[in-house]
This record gives sequence, structure tokens and C-alpha cells, in this order.
Amino acid sequence: MIRFECDYAEGCHPKILDALVRTNFEQTEGYGMDPHSLKAEELIKTACHNEDARVYFVVGGTQANKIVIAQVLRPHQGVVCVDSGHIAVHEAGAIEATGHKCLTIPQKNGKLDFADLKSYLENYWADPNHEHMVQPGMVYISTPTEVGTIYSKDELTQISKICREYDIPLFVDGARLGYGFGSKENDLTLKDLSDLADVFYIGGTKVGALLGEAIVFTKPNGLDRDFRSVIKQNVGLLAKGRLIGIQFEELFTDNLYFDISKKAVDQANRIKNAFKEKGFEMWIDSPTNQQFPILTREAIQKLRQNFSFMTWPDTGEPKMITRFCTSWATSDEDVDKLLGHIREL
Amino acid sequence: MIRFECDYAEGCHPKILDALVRTNFEQTEGYGMDPHSLKAEELIKTACHNEDARVYFVVGGTQANKIVIAQVLRPHQGVVCVDSGHIAVHEAGAIEATGHKCLTIPQKNGKLDFADLKSYLENYWADPNHEHMVQPGMVYISTPTEVGTIYSKDELTQISKICREYDIPLFVDGARLGYGFGSKENDLTLKDLSDLADVFYIGGTKVGALLGEAIVFTKPNGLDRDFRSVIKQNVGLLAKGRLIGIQFEELFTDNLYFDISKKAVDQANRIKNAFKEKGFEMWIDSPTNQQFPILTREAIQKLRQNFSFMTWPDTGEPKMITRFCTSWATSDEDVDKLLGHIREL
Amino acid sequence: MIRFECDYAEGCHPKILDALVRTNFEQTEGYGMDPHSLKAEELIKTACHNEDARVYFVVGGTQANKIVIAQVLRPHQGVVCVDSGHIAVHEAGAIEATGHKCLTIPQKNGKLDFADLKSYLENYWADPNHEHMVQPGMVYISTPTEVGTIYSKDELTQISKICREYDIPLFVDGARLGYGFGSKENDLTLKDLSDLADVFYIGGTKVGALLGEAIVFTKPNGLDRDFRSVIKQNVGLLAKGRLIGIQFEELFTDNLYFDISKKAVDQANRIKNAFKEKGFEMWIDSPTNQQFPILTREAIQKLRQNFSFMTWPDTGEPKMITRFCTSWATSDEDVDKLLGHIREL
Amino acid sequence: MIRFECDYAEGCHPKILDALVRTNFEQTEGYGMDPHSLKAEELIKTACHNEDARVYFVVGGTQANKIVIAQVLRPHQGVVCVDSGHIAVHEAGAIEATGHKCLTIPQKNGKLDFADLKSYLENYWADPNHEHMVQPGMVYISTPTEVGTIYSKDELTQISKICREYDIPLFVDGARLGYGFGSKENDLTLKDLSDLADVFYIGGTKVGALLGEAIVFTKPNGLDRDFRSVIKQNVGLLAKGRLIGIQFEELFTDNLYFDISKKAVDQANRIKNAFKEKGFEMWIDSPTNQQFPILTREAIQKLRQNFSFMTWPDTGEPKMITRFCTSWATSDEDVDKLLGHIREL
Repeated sequence: MIRFECDYAEGCHPKILDALVRTNFEQTEGYGMDPHSLKAEELIKTACHNEDARVYFVVGGTQANKIVIAQVLRPHQGVVCVDSGHIAVHEAGAIEATGHKCLTIPQKNGKLDFADLKSYLENYWADPNHEHMVQPGMVYISTPTEVGTIYSKDELTQISKICREYDIPLFVDGARLGYGFGSKENDLTLKDLSDLADVFYIGGTKVGALLGEAIVFTKPNGLDRDFRSVIKQNVGLLAKGRLIGIQFEELFTDNLYFDISKKAVDQANRIKNAFKEKGFEMWIDSPTNQQFPILTREAIQKLRQNFSFMTWPDTGEPKMITRFCTSWATSDEDVDKLLGHIREL
Repeated sequence: MIRFECDYAEGCHPKILDALVRTNFEQTEGYGMDPHSLKAEELIKTACHNEDARVYFVVGGTQANKIVIAQVLRPHQGVVCVDSGHIAVHEAGAIEATGHKCLTIPQKNGKLDFADLKSYLENYWADPNHEHMVQPGMVYISTPTEVGTIYSKDELTQISKICREYDIPLFVDGARLGYGFGSKENDLTLKDLSDLADVFYIGGTKVGALLGEAIVFTKPNGLDRDFRSVIKQNVGLLAKGRLIGIQFEELFTDNLYFDISKKAVDQANRIKNAFKEKGFEMWIDSPTNQQFPILTREAIQKLRQNFSFMTWPDTGEPKMITRFCTSWATSDEDVDKLLGHIREL
Repeated sequence: MIRFECDYAEGCHPKILDALVRTNFEQTEGYGMDPHSLKAEELIKTACHNEDARVYFVVGGTQANKIVIAQVLRPHQGVVCVDSGHIAVHEAGAIEATGHKCLTIPQKNGKLDFADLKSYLENYWADPNHEHMVQPGMVYISTPTEVGTIYSKDELTQISKICREYDIPLFVDGARLGYGFGSKENDLTLKDLSDLADVFYIGGTKVGALLGEAIVFTKPNGLDRDFRSVIKQNVGLLAKGRLIGIQFEELFTDNLYFDISKKAVDQANRIKNAFKEKGFEMWIDSPTNQQFPILTREAIQKLRQNFSFMTWPDTGEPKMITRFCTSWATSDEDVDKLLGHIREL
Repeated sequence: MIRFECDYAEGCHPKILDALVRTNFEQTEGYGMDPHSLKAEELIKTACHNEDARVYFVVGGTQANKIVIAQVLRPHQGVVCVDSGHIAVHEAGAIEATGHKCLTIPQKNGKLDFADLKSYLENYWADPNHEHMVQPGMVYISTPTEVGTIYSKDELTQISKICREYDIPLFVDGARLGYGFGSKENDLTLKDLSDLADVFYIGGTKVGALLGEAIVFTKPNGLDRDFRSVIKQNVGLLAKGRLIGIQFEELFTDNLYFDISKKAVDQANRIKNAFKEKGFEMWIDSPTNQQFPILTREAIQKLRQNFSFMTWPDTGEPKMITRFCTSWATSDEDVDKLLGHIREL
């Protein structure tokens, strides 16, 4: 059984394992103050072309989301996001557990539409009862989104602009950021992200690391004040912080993060094309490592004999939406095998 | 200027004022352990035909909502409600501040549809990732709703049934409960509510009292365990609790609560009919004390010279939705004056 | 049975009742935007000699404490207070429910000692692990304290100074503030409080009102930004806000608040002196409306036949600490009766 | 520079690294449902001689503490612990951020005294105002404690008994559990812990792992109901959960966890004895891997040239408390070097 069901089915990139073995008996300070974490911060700042950036490492994506939101909002404020956003749906109420509401706007193609955001903010402030409503205190988007789509530089620029008009921070969840950069449609750079967002994170867990996300505060404006205490309070401060530092050191050396991401997206495109060539439609036109072919029950049954992948809940329709993921760990051989089986459907 | 903009523009029913004057120098225990509060509890239990009921008094509706929800839910659970629900929209995030998410379902006529609730609960438990999603831990509805509609006994019975199937409590917000009972369409009694809901409250603030809501736990099942501490923690325990006890004592003596409610609804119906007779449509067909005529700008401008009422945000359309409220304090004279002006439109 | 057990056993001052009756059918805006609340704010600002002050009304003391603390602190911060502080002991965890720790310092005579506070703050910042500890983000004191003692102007000035050195707000709980001002030992004015504290409140519940506390933000520095939303979220915004406004309007007209307080303290002194004349010691030397005679079991038993008062838990000692409270409502006749019985002990 | 400052300065035990390398490209389910996590659960249940136990893995000790406490308490309840407890002092308010108070009792030798606990619980329930006070809802202890002391089986039995009398769960923080079991004074087994505690955890981070703690619910009584959702909400659910599973699989194979712990404690004893032989006193008589010699400034200065270790804040006294930690990673050579320098002091 070959797994295409998610992008976190294996351990980590071999270069990271090598580094862990190599450094294992080094004695370092704890809680992220070790030389590897400090070096990784420098590498990321350089990759962002932003010497003012501040980088913090946490264990996972839900942690990054919860902790950044807890850091940024005042008690009566909420975070604006699309209704399909990870924080709104799949974090078991982690955001609400910090006391904050997810203020949802219907997604379009998985994304937050600039005009929808604008009118949401206008309506809030125009409402004579807005004191009785949760105040929008920041904006959260993901790129790639839950459905694999990405924001263009133009789209991000528009959203950033409206956030600045309303003086609320823009936070970008980059749990799969590498796979966005690896897309042929991408026109965004880390520098752009660093310019346009107030805080974002670079996902490691799904892009080559055992665990770890690098949170980047982009401006020297105090938004990250006392952030380490907020990380600690929200249980994201790793005693052996070096474990994340070492991993990002490797990922941001010799372009590794970007290379492994690009390869995964290329493999996803091969899978997409194979399905399309067999006449299957895609649920959504994803340019990244997640693909969503709409398959017949028969096709699903056949593929399931050798491959695992996600299917949407059965609604009785003759065809069902499925999801196939590649990752930094996907081998060409496994993709070849899948392609072989697709062609035989 | 005569106010029809809300149902809390005046003080309280004169009988209550009399009672406050009469009892002012009585010395009593604090925090709701006084004889008036105990007597009021008995009166309400009798009105509910439920000797097992437990009654607690708090200051306002948002308090009642927040405190009951905090009492009932475990940390990973949320409260199911319609998207127009008071807790979801107009409580400044009071529910989220207790750590809980409002799990919203689109409203139909201001109400929660039984079938929608059923499918929501089914889908949650059928989702293989439901552990990562907020668990529906209780259901919240209001009757009358935000838009003045009410649940029939049949509708409430259906919702109650599905709640019991899923073993989650049903909570009914009755901030305007009297005005529901005062409606000609009403077929629900306090006894029904006490049978079908696990916890509900009887609103005083909008129905004759200076402040105060009576929360009724209907079953001797421990759902109210240590509830007074949860009230205290959520700042709803009034030092001079007698202030609420005395008011409910009056309201539940000689049918006062029901009589003043019925009168207010009758007045609202007169206003509704006057608007309809002049050819204005109603935004929603409300059988209670809130009426929502859709008026021309010209009509609004004219009426505004003598009356205050709410208007929906101006969307540029030629007509606008408005709201006229009556209450226990609305005088026949004021209604007559309004009717006179409506007829002249 | 005459009650000396607390200072909230009766209703409210007759002038307030008169005002409630007089204004009952006035139609006003809700949520504290009515003319009475606005007038009361002006009266309080004048009494504080502080035109920059911002005044907000909430229902009770625990509300005032919870809401101000929620407003002021960032998530990783706590509130410094004495271990006997109301927020640390008797609010059922209301502060922790907002996510914040009470950072306690041992009380001295019920009060926070300046030098203890200084060394607490120094030690926190000197600790190399302070990032892992809750950051002191504000200071809370009460005057009068839980045991009736009061801060002198000098003491308050010292505490204020250290708070400003560390750039953290000073919050003064004045649930019994009137009884402090009514003390012969008092050398503090509302103006001093307004100068030295960043936020404080003037208690109404225990000093003549049915309910209500007036929170005063003393500086135009934005500390109260969006405070009404935080009040709403923490369920302290009263729909019929006029109820509190009218009461403070009366209390701050013709010196009523101060006169009724002074009288209560004078009565408490009579009680104190009567006990002392009979040779009973005081547990603490309280100059305000609470007195703490240490009585024999026999004396307690005798007095209990006609009077209610608090006793500390029975530790088996021959004598027990008791508490006798006077209030704005205490009549000279009741004090005379008590004095008669004390003399006969 | 050789580090004796903490027990998390290195990576992980080589056997764990080997296992990570060996399993790296296995494809597994995420979020702890992989075969390694399931196998590790079985190994731990066997080690506890408790087939009813349920085991959950989280990343770190603060996570384990926060999540278990959030799971167990109702909103108005707090957790009883000693004033030096990790949750009360060094978790940046993580517990309070879940809404719960740490109810502290003065420590004795770092431990919770049975009689103190008993009287705390008695006093709470005897207090007529206990509804206004945070209800003790569970008891938290650590073994070894923050100062290296351990609970005997007798002591734990007494505490367990009083917890059961009051029907509140006993939670044991075992972040350094191995070092307790490795002590010569220890008379406690995993089976005892499993019998006497309701929930405890076995620390991996400080005892050989890169990260990871194994939380054990010991009774089939539903205390762990929906615990995975509470873990997710509190950001402790690792996407690549196998990372922790693999580590505990190794630690609980061939007695590894116990052997490496015992060795570390033996090394700590060598250090303790060396200091004592030179006439230095110990601040506390710790039988585990942390030792607290009281050293002269001169001794500190000399040792600092080659070794890092913690010192307590300088109070101006001629001698200072220090802490020397060993761990699973401490080499005999490093201990020999330290002993050499101690002997030369």
C-alpha cells in the first residue's frame, strides 16, 4: 500500500537526519537559544531579504496559528478568515480556547476575496451596534490554501493594502508554503511575503522536517513583544529547541526547502495530468502538491487496492471527490506505479 | 419623540417599583439567598408545573447565555446555534471568551431548522476527522428569535428529540419569552418548555423588570452542579440578589408577566396592521412585539419627526427595512399617535 | 434579628428610590448612553477634579475587577495583589477565567507593602528565567482593604511611583471607597486617587445603591480603548444602564455619597469603642465600617440572640474573631440596641 | 565548557537515533495512530501492569500539565499544588490561560504534605463562602520534585487516599520520573503509580528522548473522554506522532529508560559526595539527578572556568546555592573531570 493520503506520512529529509546524528552530543542551551536556532534564524532572514525580521520556531501549524493569534489580538477582537480556513474548521477550537472568535467570510476557490474583506470591514465599522460585535483585529489567510490554491502577488498586495488601511495585521499561514513556491503559477517570493504580511510562517512539518514551523515577524514594530512568553504559555516552546533549529538550518542551506517542494509539485502535476488524460475532472484546479480528482466508485475501488488517498464523504452521487498528496518524500517510482494504475482505469 | 426602537427604554412595571419601595429596608441575606428570591423560585417552579426545576437569577441575557454555556460544555465542545443567533452576533465574543465556539447553522425565518440540525450532527460524527473539529456539545435557540418569530410546540419537540438522541442539552434563550407567550400564534406553555428544554430562561429585562433573567434547569440530573460558583466566576451573582427576586415575585404574581406581554403584542399587531393597510410589506412575518415594515425613504423621514425606530443599513435601495418594538411600557396613546401618523403617510 | 453581618443587607438610599420612581417612564437610550449616565459621569469627573477622566458603569465589584484586568493585561501577564485580595480569594476564579494569574504578595495589615512590591518586581526582572514566569502587568490594591484598613496618601504615592517606574498600571478597587473617605484617619481625596491610580472604581453596591460601580480611567492615554466592548464581552453592560446612572447621579449630588459613608463609619466607631470599653480586643485596628472584635464564645452566644454578624471558623480557641459591619442604612436605633447588649456582656 | 546546568542539553539516546534512521521512510498514519505509537502504548501498559491504562503522547511537560488539567477540571475548579510546583511558577501562566487557578500550599522539602492537603480541603468545604472561592478539583504533584526529592510509596498512598475521599483526581507530573526510579531511596514502581494516581506522565524529554511525554490515564472511568480533541485544542497533537511513538518504543525496550536513568543518578551521587567530602553543604538532600551544593563565590568562580551550572540569584551572602544536573547523556569522563576540579577547590 502506497500512501498519497497526506504530506506527513514519512519522517524527514535524509540531510536532516544526518544533521541530527552529527550534532547529537553537542551540548547546547535550551528553549531555542542554541547556535543552530540562531543560525537558522539568520538563514531565514537572509532568504527573506529582511534584516529586521524576527524568527521564532514552534512545533506545528496549529501551534503557530494559535500562538500568533493570541499574541496579536486584544480580548474583544477576532480574526477574520475564510469559512474553510484551517483555524475555523480543523483545530478543535484552539483559537476559541484563547478567547477569540474566527470571523468567517465565505471562501472563493479556497481564498479570501479582497472585495469581500473590504466590505466585511466597512460593514463592521458602519454598524451602529459594532461595540456589541467582535471587532476584526487581524486577518488570517493560508497560502497554499486548504484546497491547494495559491495567492498571486497581486492578490496578496490588495489584501495587505486593506489591512493597512484598517490598521490590522495580516497573518499568513504557510504550513505548505514550499509547495506554493514550487508551483509553476507562483509569482510570490519570500521577500514579497515579508513585505506584505506582518507575520507569516514557513512550514517545516509538511515540507521535509520531522516537525517545526518558523514564524517570521516582518516589521520592527513591537508586534512580537514578549512573544517567547506567549509561546511558553501556549506550550509551543520546545526544551530541546535545537531540534527545530537544526532542521531549518538544513532546509535553508543549498536551496533544499525549495528544491524538494518543487519536485513534489512536479510529481503532483504528473498525477493530475494522468487523471485528466483519462477524462477525470478535477474538483478544483490546484497548482500545488494536493490534487482533487473526481473519480467513479469503480476507479476508487481499483486504486484503493494499492494506494491510500482521501475521499470526501459519500453523498450517494456516482462520483466522489478524492485527494492525492505528494510530498518531499514521494518517490518517482511510487508516482510511476500510480500513473500505471491510473492509465489502466 | 416617542421611542419604538427597543423594548428596554423605560424603567420597570409600577408594581415592581412599589415592591422595591415597600421592601427597601428589609434586611436580607445577600447573593440570592433572601426570602424574595426563594419565593420567586417557588412561583416559577409552580408556573412550570415542575417541582424538580432549579431556578437561578442573573442580571441580563448575555450573562445568562454565557454562564449557562460555560456551565454545560466541556472545553473541546461548542454550542450549535443559527448564524443570526444573539450569542453568535451580538455578545462581543462573550461565548468565545469562555473558550467555546459558536457552531453556526444558517437560520430559516430566524429559527433553527430541525432537519438542518440533524444533518449537522450526523455529519460531524460521520467525519473521520471529527476529533480535529469542535464537538457539538449543546444546542442553543431563542424564542422569540431575533426577528420576532417563535417556535411551535411541534418544532420544539422535534429539536428536543434530536438533542436527546445525541445526548446533548437543549438551551432556550427566552430574553423575550413573554412576548412569545403573548402571541396569538403561540401554542407553547412554560410546562412544555420545561419538558422539552434542559435549561431555559425567562427574560425580565425586556418584560417589565429593571433587570434580571430567571434561568431554569428543568431536570434533576446534575446539569446545574455548582452553578452558583460558575455564576460568580462569570460575574453574574448580584450582591443584593433580592433586587431580582422581588421583581420576579411581582412578575409571577397575578399573571402579571403574561398580561403585560400580551398587551404589548396586541399593540405590535395594531402597528403591523396599520402599516399593511397602507400597503407596506413586512420584511418578516413576526407574531410578537417586534415588527419589521419595509418603508420608503419618504415614510421613514416623516415618521422620524415624531418617533424613533431602527432602520437597517442603507443599501441604496428605494425602500429600507425598519423595526418597531412595543413593550410592557408602551401606552395606548403612543400607539394611537403612531397609527395616526402611519395613516397619513 | 438585626443584621450587622455585611454592608449590603438593605435596598438603597431613599433618595435613589425617589429618583427611580420619578424617572421610571422616561424613555432613554440603552447600554449607558442615557442622559442620567452621562450626567453621572460629569459629576464624578468634577468630584475627581479631572476633566480627562473617562467613567464607565458596571453592575458589581467582581465585574469591575474582572473587566478592568481583562482590559489592561496582555495574555502572558498577571496582576500583582496581596494574598488576601478579593480577586485572589473571593471571586471564584473570575480573574483566572480571563486567562490571567493573580501574582500574590503576603499582605501586611491587609495592605500591599511598597517595599515588598518593589522587590517582587525587581526579582521578576532579575530572574534569568522570567520568560517562563507570568509577567507582572499591573498592580491591584483595595482601599479600604478586606480587613477595613486604608492606604494613606503617602502609601499610595509610593506604590504609584514604583508602578510608573515599571510602566505598569495601578488599579484601585474602591468597592467600599466611601467608607475609606469617611474615616477619621483618611488623608486621601478623589483627586489624589485620580492622580495616583491609572484606573479605580467608586463602589455603589455597598454604599447606598442597589447595585453599580463607577470605573474611572484617569488618564487620556488610551488605556480604556474599546472598553465598552470588553465590558459587553464580560457581561457587565446593563441594557437599562440608566439604572446605574440615576443612582450615581443621586450619590454625587449634595455630597450624599460622602455623608452616608461618614455616618456609617461613625456608627462603626461607636461599636468598636463599646467593645473596647468592655475589654475586648480588636483583631485588626480598622478605621472604617468593618470592625473585628475578638469575642468569647459566651459573648457571641448572647449577642447572637438579637444580632447577626460573621464569625471566623472555630479553631477551638476560647475566643473567636468576629466581624460587625455598618452601612449607609444602619440606623442609630439599631446601633443603640447593639451597644446596650454589648454593655450587658 | 562542560554543561551540568540542565538535563536537556543534548539530543537523544543513540538507540533512538538509530530507530529514527531505520524507520524514516516508513509511511504511517498521522496524529499518533501509527504502529509505533500503538506499540509504545502497549509497552507502557505492560510496564505499568495495567491493561486498563490509556496512553497518550504529547510533546513536552508543560503541554502534558496544561492539557491534563484542562481535561479534568470544570470551569470553577482549580488545581491544588505546592507553591514551588512547576505549574505554579515556570509555565508562564499556561494553566491560568485555560481558565484555572493554581491553588497553592506551601511546599515541604519540595513536596506536598499529606496533612496540609487534608486541612486545605477540609477548610475549603467548611468555609461558608466556599461558593465564592475556587473549588479544588484535582491535586497535582511532581516526583521527582523541582528540587529533586521524591515521594515514597507511603506518602503517595496517603495523598491518593485523601484525593479519593474528596473524589478528586490525583495527577502526577513525571517529567523526571526515570530519575526518581533510578534513586537508591526509591520504593515506588510504575505499577504503584498506576494504582495510586488517576493520571500521570512518564517524561521522555529529560530522559533520553528528543521530546515527548507519555500521559497515562490509569482507570477505565472515562476521565480521558475525548482527550485527543483536548490535546488538539491545546496544540499538543503532533502530525508525525510516530516521532514520539518510536522514541518510547525504544525507551521501553530492554529496560533502557530505567537503565539510563539509574546511571545518571549514580553520577549525580558521585558529584554530591565529592562536594560533601570537600565540606560543602547541600541546600537540599536530593536523591536524584539534580544536586544543590552551597558553594563559596571562589569555588563558583573556579568551577565556572570549565563547567556550566545554575546559581541562585546573588543575595549578597558569602555562599550561594547552585545546581548540578546529570542526565542520560552525561559521560563518566565529564563527571571525572568535574570531580577532579572539585577536589582541587
